[in-house]
Amino acid sequence: MLRFSRRMATARRSFVREILKVTEDPSIISFAGGLPNPRFFPIAELSRATQKTMSESGAAALQYSTTEGFPPLREYIAARYRRRGVQVGANDILITNGSQQGLDLVAKAVLDQGDVVLVERPTYLAAIQAFGLFEPRFRALELCEDGVQSDLIARSLTEDQPKILYAIPTFQNPTGISWSAARRREAASLLSASNTILVEDDPYSELRFAGEPLAPMGLVPGTSDLAPWAVLLGTFSKTVAPGMRLGWLCAHHEIMERVIVAKQAADLQSNGFAQLVLNRYLSDDDVESHIAHIREAYGRQRDLMVHLYEKLFPPEVLCTKPEGGMFLWMTLPKGLSSMDLLEKAIKAKVAFVPGQAFFTDDCGGNTMRLNFSNADEPMIEEGMKRLARVFATATLLRKAS
Amino acid sequence: MLRFSRRMATARRSFVREILKVTEDPSIISFAGGLPNPRFFPIAELSRATQKTMSESGAAALQYSTTEGFPPLREYIAARYRRRGVQVGANDILITNGSQQGLDLVAKAVLDQGDVVLVERPTYLAAIQAFGLFEPRFRALELCEDGVQSDLIARSLTEDQPKILYAIPTFQNPTGISWSAARRREAASLLSASNTILVEDDPYSELRFAGEPLAPMGLVPGTSDLAPWAVLLGTFSKTVAPGMRLGWLCAHHEIMERVIVAKQAADLQSNGFAQLVLNRYLSDDDVESHIAHIREAYGRQRDLMVHLYEKLFPPEVLCTKPEGGMFLWMTLPKGLSSMDLLEKAIKAKVAFVPGQAFFTDDCGGNTMRLNFSNADEPMIEEGMKRLARVFATATLLRKAS
Repeated sequence: MLRFSRRMATARRSFVREILKVTEDPSIISFAGGLPNPRFFPIAELSRATQKTMSESGAAALQYSTTEGFPPLREYIAARYRRRGVQVGANDILITNGSQQGLDLVAKAVLDQGDVVLVERPTYLAAIQAFGLFEPRFRALELCEDGVQSDLIARSLTEDQPKILYAIPTFQNPTGISWSAARRREAASLLSASNTILVEDDPYSELRFAGEPLAPMGLVPGTSDLAPWAVLLGTFSKTVAPGMRLGWLCAHHEIMERVIVAKQAADLQSNGFAQLVLNRYLSDDDVESHIAHIREAYGRQRDLMVHLYEKLFPPEVLCTKPEGGMFLWMTLPKGLSSMDLLEKAIKAKVAFVPGQAFFTDDCGGNTMRLNFSNADEPMIEEGMKRLARVFATATLLRKAS
Repeated sequence: MLRFSRRMATARRSFVREILKVTEDPSIISFAGGLPNPRFFPIAELSRATQKTMSESGAAALQYSTTEGFPPLREYIAARYRRRGVQVGANDILITNGSQQGLDLVAKAVLDQGDVVLVERPTYLAAIQAFGLFEPRFRALELCEDGVQSDLIARSLTEDQPKILYAIPTFQNPTGISWSAARRREAASLLSASNTILVEDDPYSELRFAGEPLAPMGLVPGTSDLAPWAVLLGTFSKTVAPGMRLGWLCAHHEIMERVIVAKQAADLQSNGFAQLVLNRYLSDDDVESHIAHIREAYGRQRDLMVHLYEKLFPPEVLCTKPEGGMFLWMTLPKGLSSMDLLEKAIKAKVAFVPGQAFFTDDCGGNTMRLNFSNADEPMIEEGMKRLARVFATATLLRKAS
């Protein structure tokens, strides 16, 4: 009998990643994954960037390099923050394997068994997994239309003494909700007076197609300075390509120093080849208009999906209308199970993610997440029709029974 | 006051990785890192492979993909094992960010705080780090010329009930020592009768320039089948390029299932772009003669370094003469500190790694690791002369005092 760690006793494969396998069947229209639309991958540009990188600095790209990451790429990321009004330098940036690795590294640097992690309710499934392997206790704070209410945060900071508050304040996964500027400021004030570390996950803020940009939560209140208690996570997965597996972690020295130790032990450094190629692409190509292009397309895709929801579903089915990101969040009438619906949906060749996976307390059985970034408009149209038919049949059968 | 995890209280940055920064000064001849010679990086080949990959399957390379890794690459690795006489299939392979990540994932899947990990004495520094973050107790078993004596292993398996035995049986880092076939068989028999998991790290076996290839330790005794209690770790870092950050973990279902859960939480998947490019390179190019070429060059470099050691150092300085890999292991007369020597060596523009970092019990103060793969022959000649001068001066001063 082989013996494994206690943490593996309850750990499971990601439901979302397993659904991805089902949806490899090309006849299934998938709203399940959080995949960017591959139509926008800068394939030719990255190919050119590779030729140039290899002829100019092939040996540097292919040799071992520093744990922190390729300095010009770190500077690019810092400069981009500064243009958004956040005062950080290249030394505050660590290159990671997507922002997912940032979660693992922070968890390792901060969490002991039994420590409390505050999360939004619902929250990102793979964050539950990443933190969960360090055996914390989760406290989930109800996410409202404009964020988490500050009295909930205040009470939990006092009562639970959480090590981490984890939030995705902009176009949250799975709900698409953004915290308002006021809610962000309130949370930052509370955090400033606590010894809790904020992990602010932000994969989506570049994908805004309506409304005004918002400052991150992790700033010293009243300034544009990164707070010493904040970790910002970012990624190139949604703006360039997820297959490059490049993201970053932004934090000041006290946190950064520990995270670097964790990164060294985890995999020495991120992919140097990919880092240099990406940096070349970012320097040589017009990334701003590339992102603008994605933004515009996703905006149209969201509009269409929201329009079809309004047209095809009855008013007792609720749905968010986010100003950006990749997801809609649907709430079915109480008592309807989105997991049962998924089974029928897959037979009807359409897929989504049942919402329960995003709750740490097994609730949300009547919720579901719909991705609008991956499918083109004709597919969205057809998929939403299939989904509406599945829903209508399920409701009819339920009334009949 | 921010609060970090207990594991960070003793964790430090890797001494080797920090020395790498010192040795970025081009006037220093470095025998410190474990760097391959960049002269052999297949730069043009990888550039061509990228172009082909991007034009044929750019979207697949850049999209999210499965946690396990790119199927053809997994099959390539399995087939290579089968050619070495180890019966495994593609399902037994997980693609990782270098073999370093394999250590982190196995540690996460297997270790609880206080569990015992058996290691060779000395052992690979970054394995001490990776395992160390899961707060085990280390037991170090003296590494002799032909491996660890089986009575030591037997006693420890009984007394310590270790969760893991970690070994690098071929051209070990740091010593260059290989376990004999007999020692491997003895260890496998003992492990078969225990519930300890073997983590067999093998980054170097392709770099053999003398002697006969040896079967892995992790086989069911008397067969060529991978044992259910074995994890084999491998990497493309030494044969292709470390900047690609691609390695693998090979294990059967019971272990693999847990490690995949850990991988999903850690970073979802390894770099898809790099995986497809590497796979293209491995299919299109003559990798066997590429490796043969490296092997031959490293063999010459080792010969030269050993020759200079014999010529320039007195007989009371001991040194291993490995049949492959990247390292020599030097033992200075008792009482001489290799850490003190390093300080003087850096002033004389030559660097190595003091051996103490490779011990879990702070011993080995008179040992040091010399890398012979990274420097070309003229540099080896000059570096060894500088080192011998530093050593001679230190000995003289010691006798005078």
